[in-house]
Amino acid sequence: MCWDVPEVASPCAVTFRDALERQAQLTKPPGSLGLLEELAVRLAAMQGRVRPALDQVTISLFAADHGVADEGVSAFPQSVTRKMLRNFICGGAAISVLARRIGAGLEVVDVGVIEHENESPDNADIVSARAGNGTANFTLRPAMTDEQLVRALTAGSEAVARARMAGAQLFIGGEMGIANTTSASALACALLHADPRVLTGPGTGLNAERVRHKRTVIEAGLMRHDGHGGNPLEILRCLGGFEIAALSAAYLHAASSSIPVLVDGFIAGVAALLAVRLQPACADWLFFAHRSAEPGHIVVLEALQARPILDMDMRLGEGSGAALAVPLLRSACAIHNDMATFSEAGISSA
Amino acid sequence: MCWDVPEVASPCAVTFRDALERQAQLTKPPGSLGLLEELAVRLAAMQGRVRPALDQVTISLFAADHGVADEGVSAFPQSVTRKMLRNFICGGAAISVLARRIGAGLEVVDVGVIEHENESPDNADIVSARAGNGTANFTLRPAMTDEQLVRALTAGSEAVARARMAGAQLFIGGEMGIANTTSASALACALLHADPRVLTGPGTGLNAERVRHKRTVIEAGLMRHDGHGGNPLEILRCLGGFEIAALSAAYLHAASSSIPVLVDGFIAGVAALLAVRLQPACADWLFFAHRSAEPGHIVVLEALQARPILDMDMRLGEGSGAALAVPLLRSACAIHNDMATFSEAGISSA
Repeated sequence: MCWDVPEVASPCAVTFRDALERQAQLTKPPGSLGLLEELAVRLAAMQGRVRPALDQVTISLFAADHGVADEGVSAFPQSVTRKMLRNFICGGAAISVLARRIGAGLEVVDVGVIEHENESPDNADIVSARAGNGTANFTLRPAMTDEQLVRALTAGSEAVARARMAGAQLFIGGEMGIANTTSASALACALLHADPRVLTGPGTGLNAERVRHKRTVIEAGLMRHDGHGGNPLEILRCLGGFEIAALSAAYLHAASSSIPVLVDGFIAGVAALLAVRLQPACADWLFFAHRSAEPGHIVVLEALQARPILDMDMRLGEGSGAALAVPLLRSACAIHNDMATFSEAGISSA
Repeated sequence: MCWDVPEVASPCAVTFRDALERQAQLTKPPGSLGLLEELAVRLAAMQGRVRPALDQVTISLFAADHGVADEGVSAFPQSVTRKMLRNFICGGAAISVLARRIGAGLEVVDVGVIEHENESPDNADIVSARAGNGTANFTLRPAMTDEQLVRALTAGSEAVARARMAGAQLFIGGEMGIANTTSASALACALLHADPRVLTGPGTGLNAERVRHKRTVIEAGLMRHDGHGGNPLEILRCLGGFEIAALSAAYLHAASSSIPVLVDGFIAGVAALLAVRLQPACADWLFFAHRSAEPGHIVVLEALQARPILDMDMRLGEGSGAALAVPLLRSACAIHNDMATFSEAGISSA
C-alpha cells in the first residue's frame, strides 16, 4: 500500500525542564494548579518555547458516510450527514459556534459523504477530498479498498499541511458521519481485543434494544474481518470510516510537523489509538480534551494512558469537546506566561 | 446578633421550561452536549431570559488572616497573606491573570489581614472592610466576636451590592488567608458532624506528619467550641475566618439579588455550605466550578449535592478555579443562544 507512516520526533526535553523550572517559581504553592501546570509545560516542550502560545488554532472537520448505516445502527437517517455539512458551513452547528468563540479556523472536509444524482453540487466552502461515495457495509465486505484507504489518509495529511501553512499552534480534528460510532467501536474492539458488549454504546441516542442490535452488527463485522493479523491499517481498511482514517493520518502528520494535537471524544480517540499503534512516538503530541459519555471511550483512554481535561457527559463529536477545552489550554498558557515569580513579588517561596 | 439572613426567591420556572424546549430544537442529538445543556438552561432560569448572557462577570476576592496560623498549620508564614494582597493588585497572581483573560472585574477586599505598625498603609486599590486584625486562635477562644462576625458578613453583602451596581451577570468570590483550609476543615466538620481525619488535607502543601498535626489542631478547636448547638452562625463565629464569613454572606446576597454565583473550591465550598444551611433556597443560585484536590472538598460537594464543572486537581483558591470555568459557562450560553434549530437547518429531528 502506497502510504508511509511519518517519522515523529520527541518534544524538546530542554524546554520541558526550563518550563517546569518556571512553574516552580510562580507565586503559588508548588503543584497547586494541578493539571494546568502539566498542560502548559507539555505545550512548551512541543512548541520548543518556554512560554507557549495558542493564538492560532485550526479545526479540520472530516465528514463521511458509512455503509454499515444500512444495518439500522443510528438514531438518525444517513441523509443527516450531508445536511449537517451544510449546517457546519452556515454556522449553525455546535462546532461552528464554538470555533467562532475561540477564534479558530474551521474547515469542513468531505472525505466521502453520500451524493445523490438529483442533489445540488458541493458548496465551494467545503474541501472536497472524497475517498468514495460512503464506505461499504462492513458486515458484507471491507469498508474500503486499498486505494480508498490511501485517499482517506491523504485527506488527513493534506489538512495538516494546510494547517501548518496557516501557522497552526494547535490542531483539532472533528468528525461527522451517521453510524460512525459503530465503525469506531468495531475498530476499538479489533485493536484492543475487547468485547463488543463493553465497547458498544448508544451513540446519538439508541435505546437498550437498539444498542444490542448494534452490538450484533459489530460482532458480525469483527467475525467477517478477523484475518487482519493485528495490522492497524488493515483493521482500519476493513472496519473504518473515511473520516476516521483521515483523523488518524492528520494526528500522525501533525505530530510529525511538531504541531500539538487536541483530540476530541470517542471517535477521535479511536483515530488517536490507530495513530499511536502506527507510530508510538505520536502519543507525546496528543492532548485529550474530554471523556465522552459514550461508554467505550473510557476503555480507549485507558489504552492510551490518557487523562482527559474535561468530563462533561458530552457525546456530540464534530470536535466540539476539543473546541470547548481550548480556553482551558489558553488559560494554562496565560498563567504560565504572565504570573509573577516569587522574587518578582518579593515573597519567599515555601 | 444584628444580621438578617436575606430572603431568596426561586429562579424562573417558566424560563427554565422555555430554555429546555429551545435545547431540544437545536441541531444535535438530544442530551448530546451533556452538562453544557444543564448549565445554559439553569442560567437562563436564573437570569429570567431564554437566552442568557455572561458578559459582566465580577470577582470579589476576600483576604484575611487566621489566628490559628500560630499553631503551625500552613506551609507558608502568615505574612504571605499581605504580600499576596499586593500581588493580586499588581496583576501577578493566578487570579489576576485569569480575571484579565475572561475580562472580569476583580476587586480585592481586606476583611482583616494582619497589619504591623511599621508597615506602609493600605494600597488605595484595596477595598478596606476590616473586621479585625486577623481572627483569634480558635484553639484558645472563639475566632471572632459577635460584632466582628457581623462586620465580616457585611463585607460580603457590600461586595455584592457593588457587583449589582456594576451589572454583574455572574458573581465569583475568591479567598486568600494563610491557614484558611484549617478553618474551613473545622467548619465543615462542625456543620457535617464529620471526622477531622476525613476533612483535613495538605492545604498549600503539608507533608503527612504536618497534616496529622493540623488534624489535632482542628480537633482541639472542635472540642473547645462544641456548644454551638448546630447553629451555623455560631459555628462560623467560633471556627471561621473573616473571608469565609464574607463569602457566605456574598453568596446569600447574590442569590437574594438574583445574581448567579460560581463557587470556587474547598474554602468557597464550605462558605456555600454555610450559606445553604442558613437559607436553603440559596442552593438554586449556585454553580460549582471545580473539585479541588483538597480531600475534604468531595465531602462538602456531596453534602451540597453539587456536581462541579471541572476536576483539574487544583488547590490554589483565590477564585482561580471559578475564573477558569467561566469560558465553559460562556460556551454553554453561546451554543444555547446561537446554534441553528432543526427547522432552521432543514433537518428532521430524530
